[in-house]
Amino acid sequence: MFELLATDPSSSARRGRLTTPHGVIETPIFMPVGTQATVKAVHPQELRSLDAQIILGNTYHLWVRPGTEIIGAAGGLHKFMNWDRPILTDSGGFQVFSLAKLRKLKEEGCYFNNHVDGTPMFLGPETAMEIQATLGSDIAMLFDECTPWPCKHEDARSSMELTLRWARRCRDWIDKHQPQTGGGAQLHFGIVQGSTFEDLRQRCAREMVAMGFSGYAIGGLSVGEPEEDMMRIAEWTCPLLPQNQARYAMGLGTPPQIVELIARGIDMFDCVLPTRLARNGTAYTHDGPMNLRNNKFAKDFRPLSEDTHPLCQGFSRAYIRHLINTQEVLGLRLISLHNLHFYLSLASRARLAIEQGCFAEFRAEVVARYQNRPETSDT
Amino acid sequence: MFELLATDPSSSARRGRLTTPHGVIETPIFMPVGTQATVKAVHPQELRSLDAQIILGNTYHLWVRPGTEIIGAAGGLHKFMNWDRPILTDSGGFQVFSLAKLRKLKEEGCYFNNHVDGTPMFLGPETAMEIQATLGSDIAMLFDECTPWPCKHEDARSSMELTLRWARRCRDWIDKHQPQTGGGAQLHFGIVQGSTFEDLRQRCAREMVAMGFSGYAIGGLSVGEPEEDMMRIAEWTCPLLPQNQARYAMGLGTPPQIVELIARGIDMFDCVLPTRLARNGTAYTHDGPMNLRNNKFAKDFRPLSEDTHPLCQGFSRAYIRHLINTQEVLGLRLISLHNLHFYLSLASRARLAIEQGCFAEFRAEVVARYQNRPETSDT
Repeated sequence: MFELLATDPSSSARRGRLTTPHGVIETPIFMPVGTQATVKAVHPQELRSLDAQIILGNTYHLWVRPGTEIIGAAGGLHKFMNWDRPILTDSGGFQVFSLAKLRKLKEEGCYFNNHVDGTPMFLGPETAMEIQATLGSDIAMLFDECTPWPCKHEDARSSMELTLRWARRCRDWIDKHQPQTGGGAQLHFGIVQGSTFEDLRQRCAREMVAMGFSGYAIGGLSVGEPEEDMMRIAEWTCPLLPQNQARYAMGLGTPPQIVELIARGIDMFDCVLPTRLARNGTAYTHDGPMNLRNNKFAKDFRPLSEDTHPLCQGFSRAYIRHLINTQEVLGLRLISLHNLHFYLSLASRARLAIEQGCFAEFRAEVVARYQNRPETSDT
Repeated sequence: MFELLATDPSSSARRGRLTTPHGVIETPIFMPVGTQATVKAVHPQELRSLDAQIILGNTYHLWVRPGTEIIGAAGGLHKFMNWDRPILTDSGGFQVFSLAKLRKLKEEGCYFNNHVDGTPMFLGPETAMEIQATLGSDIAMLFDECTPWPCKHEDARSSMELTLRWARRCRDWIDKHQPQTGGGAQLHFGIVQGSTFEDLRQRCAREMVAMGFSGYAIGGLSVGEPEEDMMRIAEWTCPLLPQNQARYAMGLGTPPQIVELIARGIDMFDCVLPTRLARNGTAYTHDGPMNLRNNKFAKDFRPLSEDTHPLCQGFSRAYIRHLINTQEVLGLRLISLHNLHFYLSLASRARLAIEQGCFAEFRAEVVARYQNRPETSDT
């Protein structure tokens, strides 16, 4: 289901094609995040105009609201949210560990009270698989534990071993139920954990691959670790993952981080930053983030950038700044579109560069030009 | 500049055409409200897809934020907000009297502290005209005082007389400065006040018309008075307004109220309800408002209505309810579009009915079918 179309001679960058029940995904790819069955502030028609090939949904959030009964009755997440291209759902584990209250982690899974109305709930490997089968996503993620940073080797090891035991139970559930969506078999991606420790990452990768999933993700990145660690983790892990399967680095990052991880052999990315930063008025540019709340944009009648999304053309920085200052939804909409366009273009430019054999130049240019200026910090 | 194209034999309803510097407006017309240089949550391209012919801007809000200096530097409100069709601006008086703090009403105008940062400001007839000239709206409203309801005859009289003295000063300012926009002369509409008193409304209408403006509005409606009073005020006023000029009922109302006021000779309407009610999850239907927060819509997979806006097609009531419950912007967007489509369609159906000589049937059908159900009250 994953076809390797081209490789970059200067790095481990790959140009690939992943086939899912709801369509084909050209990689490397950026996946807009649609946590609650909507990419925040964006209409599905706009996602099409952005050429978004696949979006994310969130198992924990959708399970809490509106609930799988309602999405099941609608005929699955695609029909519920009026999106007929591929969807990837995460397992919900990350949100249980970050959002839910009164968590009790046990061997069987996690007991918690949800963050909306405090209802007691339980999420374990089988439940996570079952919910994602009901949602009917094209790619379901395995239930894992994500270690915080920093983390002692001993804690990272026992957490990673739990993730492997849970993966085994997911594998068994999948083999038994063989979930289908859109007329085909749902894909399942295993997640490699192990914090910042080479031995743990490599052991987890080997054992995960041995269980045989449709693709593999690197989890536990962008949780506060130094960027060098993030890169090292990819360097330790990718060579152990099958060449003919897709690789997904979860929940990151800045534009240079994405390009640097593509160079290390990653194919798929998701990140909430494009839409989250839009809410505080930050727009991405090739030179770094630009915070429109800054007074210097008050009479700046230039567009956000020369190569912004068509729906953002005709609107000045001064106008969008006014919309953000007055908390008008159109401001959020325009910057969200612009930022998603920026990330999706970054991925399509990377694909083209690998195809054309000029990825090294592309990588050098993106990294050299992009500055994370303090006034407009991402954090 | 106003052409009367057809009249209804069964009522005072009129089919007309108003020419402004930025384009032609077919009447009766509903005008979406764009208070802060944006129709809340709606993109200008969507306004075009709704066939919105003219939108409103708000002098007070735009003066406070971002300020006329910035909008002037942008080349006027049309360029600032990327909208090239007609714009009507109100005078700001209503917001000064409803939003601003520490108001002191004097003969020369109103001293107040603005509601955003408390800056002391002064708005009078000349200032209101000057700001609207800078905004470059196609239709500028005169500066008036809007009386609350209920109001004693004596208070209503002195307020109406102040409105007339301010109108005289607006007239003088216009004659002296002759403001232009989009290559033509800005239009100016006088506002008839006088609360619920026939003698005051009629005196105000006569004296306002004697001063000679481009069109006339009825102000002080929908401020809490019984609906019969609203209708009576239109009945007293419209016959005194010139047949060959446009008439505008400010700031209302429900769909049956709009149809009943068309029947009394009103041509233009504006109302925040379509976008304001969207924010609490209320969608308009031919049968009355429908509040999607209601639990009965949890598994209702039908569309909002059969004749909703194209961008709302494919989304179920259950899905939009989920978006509203989770405060997702797309829910607000979809209902805003749906509701504006409902109001703009109401106006276009009224135009067609007058042209085809079946306005009486249209009026009877709209009024009989629409029910303001208590569970989904507008207020």
